[in-house]
Amino acid sequence: MDDWKPATALIVGAGSGLSASIARAFAADGMKVTLAARDVAKLNTLCRDIGAEAFSCDASELQQVETLFASLDTGPNGAPDVVVYNPSYRVRGPLIELKPEDVARTLMVTAFGGFLVGQQAVRRMTEKGRGVMVFTGASASVKGYAQSAPFAMGKFALRGLAQSMAREFQPRGIHIAHVNIDGGIRNQGRGYVEKPGQPDSFLDPDAIAATYLHLVRQQRSAWTFELEVRPWLESF
Amino acid sequence: MDDWKPATALIVGAGSGLSASIARAFAADGMKVTLAARDVAKLNTLCRDIGAEAFSCDASELQQVETLFASLDTGPNGAPDVVVYNPSYRVRGPLIELKPEDVARTLMVTAFGGFLVGQQAVRRMTEKGRGVMVFTGASASVKGYAQSAPFAMGKFALRGLAQSMAREFQPRGIHIAHVNIDGGIRNQGRGYVEKPGQPDSFLDPDAIAATYLHLVRQQRSAWTFELEVRPWLESF
Amino acid sequence: MDDWKPATALIVGAGSGLSASIARAFAADGMKVTLAARDVAKLNTLCRDIGAEAFSCDASELQQVETLFASLDTGPNGAPDVVVYNPSYRVRGPLIELKPEDVARTLMVTAFGGFLVGQQAVRRMTEKGRGVMVFTGASASVKGYAQSAPFAMGKFALRGLAQSMAREFQPRGIHIAHVNIDGGIRNQGRGYVEKPGQPDSFLDPDAIAATYLHLVRQQRSAWTFELEVRPWLESF
Amino acid sequence: MDDWKPATALIVGAGSGLSASIARAFAADGMKVTLAARDVAKLNTLCRDIGAEAFSCDASELQQVETLFASLDTGPNGAPDVVVYNPSYRVRGPLIELKPEDVARTLMVTAFGGFLVGQQAVRRMTEKGRGVMVFTGASASVKGYAQSAPFAMGKFALRGLAQSMAREFQPRGIHIAHVNIDGGIRNQGRGYVEKPGQPDSFLDPDAIAATYLHLVRQQRSAWTFELEVRPWLESF
Repeated sequence: MDDWKPATALIVGAGSGLSASIARAFAADGMKVTLAARDVAKLNTLCRDIGAEAFSCDASELQQVETLFASLDTGPNGAPDVVVYNPSYRVRGPLIELKPEDVARTLMVTAFGGFLVGQQAVRRMTEKGRGVMVFTGASASVKGYAQSAPFAMGKFALRGLAQSMAREFQPRGIHIAHVNIDGGIRNQGRGYVEKPGQPDSFLDPDAIAATYLHLVRQQRSAWTFELEVRPWLESF
Repeated sequence: MDDWKPATALIVGAGSGLSASIARAFAADGMKVTLAARDVAKLNTLCRDIGAEAFSCDASELQQVETLFASLDTGPNGAPDVVVYNPSYRVRGPLIELKPEDVARTLMVTAFGGFLVGQQAVRRMTEKGRGVMVFTGASASVKGYAQSAPFAMGKFALRGLAQSMAREFQPRGIHIAHVNIDGGIRNQGRGYVEKPGQPDSFLDPDAIAATYLHLVRQQRSAWTFELEVRPWLESF
Repeated sequence: MDDWKPATALIVGAGSGLSASIARAFAADGMKVTLAARDVAKLNTLCRDIGAEAFSCDASELQQVETLFASLDTGPNGAPDVVVYNPSYRVRGPLIELKPEDVARTLMVTAFGGFLVGQQAVRRMTEKGRGVMVFTGASASVKGYAQSAPFAMGKFALRGLAQSMAREFQPRGIHIAHVNIDGGIRNQGRGYVEKPGQPDSFLDPDAIAATYLHLVRQQRSAWTFELEVRPWLESF
Repeated sequence: MDDWKPATALIVGAGSGLSASIARAFAADGMKVTLAARDVAKLNTLCRDIGAEAFSCDASELQQVETLFASLDTGPNGAPDVVVYNPSYRVRGPLIELKPEDVARTLMVTAFGGFLVGQQAVRRMTEKGRGVMVFTGASASVKGYAQSAPFAMGKFALRGLAQSMAREFQPRGIHIAHVNIDGGIRNQGRGYVEKPGQPDSFLDPDAIAATYLHLVRQQRSAWTFELEVRPWLESF
């Protein structure tokens, strides 16, 4: 049985609680971790804690994504074995009132950035013959909610990208996975604070990270392309 | 039982055999039809045959879409009762070789244009309390094929838009439908010419149009949101 | 373009408002209709109105299904060009309290009967090289609701049967379709009576029947395998 | 964060390589494991290796399932914290030639047995307020293949059961999961032997078991209901 083990990881869209938890879980498992985010100032503590390096990058901008990967190529860790794509943007409200430029931006950050990062990632992974790319989805990846068309468009598109990449690159040794996060992440949104008597009703980012780590460590004879994570009290 | 019957239709992305067939089917059913396409020169015969008017419009450009609908508002037919969104763009090939600008264009034409047209359409339909909006999907709407990520991204996104609009606007009297065309349309692609002994192995555009017309005429107690059309010999 | 037109139809599970509406729609389109139900006494008026013959048949019993089809073979209409399978049975309640024999019965009536009828139907249709088989699904065909596991099991199984039959028999000229009825049918369940101000909030059986007729009349280059019908006010 | 940890497990349908791998993985994680199968003679070595007890049980027979659980209740391990349902039965071939009794048996073993075992399991788990129930699915759980309708019927039905149980019991503390095994398991079917140059082209049962163990250990704020496992070289 194949016993490949990833040594380096890049987490794009770092900063939120989920990205930090993934970074800590990967580092605890022995990976060298790099973080990329538009705003890196807030990553100082995390970087120090786990010995990670942080790069400033707007994932929807080709030039910045190219620069990010070029920097990794020549850095101490080299091209990453694992890449996680987390960024998203969303606007909500009555469809009639949405501003078209906000819809375009949602598509660019949520889906097009996934393509830019994914393309750079698999270029390098195919050379090595191994790698893992995980895309972070949401409830909106498989269900278009009323008054939330832009996010559905972006997350559906990202899922289409992930499926297409899985079919193209899994036979070349690169594990592609898509995780539907079906619920609010604790403390990461307005109101995502648990009520008395409802423990664990929001997703704990460390619990999600445990599943990301499991995906990354799956043996190639039994890869999971897609799964969802959902609090026990969440209706679906 | 409600007996509302649409009187006017706008078909965006006209020009292909499918759009022409839909236009003829709608006109034969008594609707006044308007066609919109980037290149209207090729629509002359069709317009004359069915008494339709044609407008030049790039559906991925906000300004042009606004101008199109404004022209209809003040024209003889008024705002359309039925709108069909057909445009798509695609690039194929190894993901590593795709040009990012082509991927962005695929998203813009295939999905963002659907938002622009859909937004203008429902603004007017909600005022009337009735209307029908049909989005044209493809096999790629529900399955991301290898070496075809951009089209999957665009068509997945369009489906997410359609679902979200259905949940927001159906309770307001507007029928939203999404049609997955799962196969090649006769004579509309390289190689889409039937082989001896395999009649009807590509979709006949008139046969597809019959189903579009059925959707448009469904009574509101039993609306179909989604269906696929597929040749009998197509594997799936 | 192929212009085959079905001449005879068998509706199994007749008696409910939906079956009666389908029978009337098919008869109005020129088909000779046969009805099969466990209790045929209630079908007298319908039979007289549309000139149909009724047979008593428990669709979950092999012998009775064989007898039904043998009777048709030697009758004036011959083997049916179109067969519709409607029967279902269900029990609800806390899973812990369900009686296993009721669960088994739900599987037998809702799914196994579909196999028995489908097998007899396609045996005859493959000889003719044409035919249509429509299976009636429900919301439970694609979503397993709490406290309703038996119905989900039966309707999921029926959908699996329909998919498998589509892949085996469509290339042999037999159109297989599955209709998800996502909502209550007017006057056919407790509480399925519309409230003031909510017209058409339950499915009108005649409206559903119009879509069954459309499926049956689709040209083979553009067959629909699956669609749902849903009231405009239904959430999903 | 909740830190419940299962102490006992029951694996139904034991005997195959997958069940043995799951049993070993659970035992290695510290669980007391019980095995149930129609034929227990072949389980001797496994039982000795991991200190497990084996019970003879036909999971499609109510009486036998009741007896199994009653035996566990009064045994040293008590009612199981984790239950895995693996049994399935299948017949293949042209639908026209299938024997109806084989189709009924497929439904009974593959799906009805899942209900019988699931009902007994959750009766006990709801009393404790915690538990995990995993159902083993297949490619046929979500796709009905030609000439394989019975297996599709059984596996679709089992998935419907799992969904319904998830919606009813997850808010009561019981994790329900459904695993689609999308490929052949190494050495467990005719031809499931790897060809030179195609390592890991069949699922390694130990690799699958690692994912079952992960599911069983997920924290309740981030439960996965469904995932698939698939070899890297498998097309889908």
